[in-house]
Amino acid sequence: MNEEPNLGRIAVVGAGAVGCYYGGMLAHGGHDVSFLMRSDLDAVRAKGLTIFTKGEEVRLAQVRAFATPEEIGPVDVVLIALKATANDALQRLLPPLIGPDTMLLTMQNGLGNEELLAARWGAERVCGGLCFVCINRTAPGVIRHLDHGSISVGEFGRPASARVRSFAEAWKKVGVEAEAVDNLSLERWRKLVWNIPFNGLSIVARANVAEVLADDNLRTIARDLMAEILDAARRLGHDIPDSFADWQIERSASMGTYRSSSMIDFEAGLPVEVESIWGEPLRQGQTAGAAMPRLEMLYRLIHALTRPKHAEPSAGAK
Amino acid sequence: MNEEPNLGRIAVVGAGAVGCYYGGMLAHGGHDVSFLMRSDLDAVRAKGLTIFTKGEEVRLAQVRAFATPEEIGPVDVVLIALKATANDALQRLLPPLIGPDTMLLTMQNGLGNEELLAARWGAERVCGGLCFVCINRTAPGVIRHLDHGSISVGEFGRPASARVRSFAEAWKKVGVEAEAVDNLSLERWRKLVWNIPFNGLSIVARANVAEVLADDNLRTIARDLMAEILDAARRLGHDIPDSFADWQIERSASMGTYRSSSMIDFEAGLPVEVESIWGEPLRQGQTAGAAMPRLEMLYRLIHALTRPKHAEPSAGAK
Repeated sequence: MNEEPNLGRIAVVGAGAVGCYYGGMLAHGGHDVSFLMRSDLDAVRAKGLTIFTKGEEVRLAQVRAFATPEEIGPVDVVLIALKATANDALQRLLPPLIGPDTMLLTMQNGLGNEELLAARWGAERVCGGLCFVCINRTAPGVIRHLDHGSISVGEFGRPASARVRSFAEAWKKVGVEAEAVDNLSLERWRKLVWNIPFNGLSIVARANVAEVLADDNLRTIARDLMAEILDAARRLGHDIPDSFADWQIERSASMGTYRSSSMIDFEAGLPVEVESIWGEPLRQGQTAGAAMPRLEMLYRLIHALTRPKHAEPSAGAK
Repeated sequence: MNEEPNLGRIAVVGAGAVGCYYGGMLAHGGHDVSFLMRSDLDAVRAKGLTIFTKGEEVRLAQVRAFATPEEIGPVDVVLIALKATANDALQRLLPPLIGPDTMLLTMQNGLGNEELLAARWGAERVCGGLCFVCINRTAPGVIRHLDHGSISVGEFGRPASARVRSFAEAWKKVGVEAEAVDNLSLERWRKLVWNIPFNGLSIVARANVAEVLADDNLRTIARDLMAEILDAARRLGHDIPDSFADWQIERSASMGTYRSSSMIDFEAGLPVEVESIWGEPLRQGQTAGAAMPRLEMLYRLIHALTRPKHAEPSAGAK
């Protein structure tokens, strides 16, 4: 009854902070995890993975790290932790990993990722994991887990299954807070209640979590955005109580000066997950009849601020 | 009939781009203009004022420039071109300039400045001038007039009078487009239709006029903000047609990469006129029952972005 669930062969696609942490903790628990890596490949092959979490250091000296999906071959489960802005690459990266019964578990942010996987590789394979975690990759192969860390795993459009329960069990065994959920879509909307304002303001107001909470104006914007998201979620059948927004504000206090992944990407000039975090929720909410003027403005501002810089327009002042 | 109106002794308080341009052009027309200056005083005393406008160079070799209002003494008209964020200084700067019949003509941005002058020195003195102009101070004593340049002059809460008509005439004589207006408050709201989105986005999206016009998302935000302002203005009795917003977008095309004064101030870390351009219109509109979610969010973002930076909060991430 308490024996280790056999998750089979696992491949992690997208070996940033999230992929390395959740995949790394499974490897730490004795599971068979292969990492598809690009920039960090040599460092991880040479030095392994190090995860600083909850005051302890998890060292994975031997890590199966590969440069191509062909070297990994078909697996039982693909954990997808690629940035959603790189989803086009899945077309090339996933086929060599997929066998007849391969499960695709996307741990990506926002909305639209399960739908994309389902459309291309079949809805029955698709599961989702929602990571409530403050985590940064501080160097190649080095992950710093700062706060929180729970993961909610669910099936796409179906109640929780044995396979997602096994994953939740496996993470719990290595100290990662995890649960199987029956309504993944509801959970995604619950997560957006935090990500939309806090990741959004980290870009538009250049404010980390503590700065948003400390500034009356930014905190009010965050609350007003949360109210719009709750309204949209309700119209889509997800009844999230207002108290959930209060709780999200409260639980953020412990994050301190945490800088969201969006903020780090933005400041580094890297692509930001504009469509999955802001664009798709806006479209789904508006389609359901929600007026979302603040989210629309936030989305448009982020879209404009993250647009690749072209040549400056010619100085046209007369 | 075509003789020069005698405007009496004029003092300019706030000798930035606007004060130097509109005051300087009156001096160029032969009027008796004294400038109260601080940082530019020595440069202007030594080299005068230079205004590059419409392809010509207006040189004012001899400029009456003073460091204190006491050196100027009571005048017939005070042109107030101080930034609204420095309005507290008026309490000290104006009394030495004010005689029994001194007219106070504020050329400041946004809402609330006439009311402040009226409350302290009597509504009957107060007039306002709205400057539709792209103008920058490029060096001490050097003003570059880039585009547009009209000024609308009106009485505070009263129809146009002989004195504001005289000012309009005087500016027209030196080639500055000017008109006397009967409804100054209406004109202020018309001006806000441009200033609120374009000055606002110059801060929040770091975008100059051309960049706002070239980006679908920013242009849409500008239009949506304009719709909110038109709604608020109508509730306050100012019927501005929707076509006015179209025209404001069109007339902006010739401004090219013009950077608003708010953008320049913001980038230089100087105070921005947050309350007069965004805060007061928001409060007046909401009091009149207008829903202004976009303006409210813009105001709150600008408020947060322009807040003086204190010490960074301590790194509290656990």
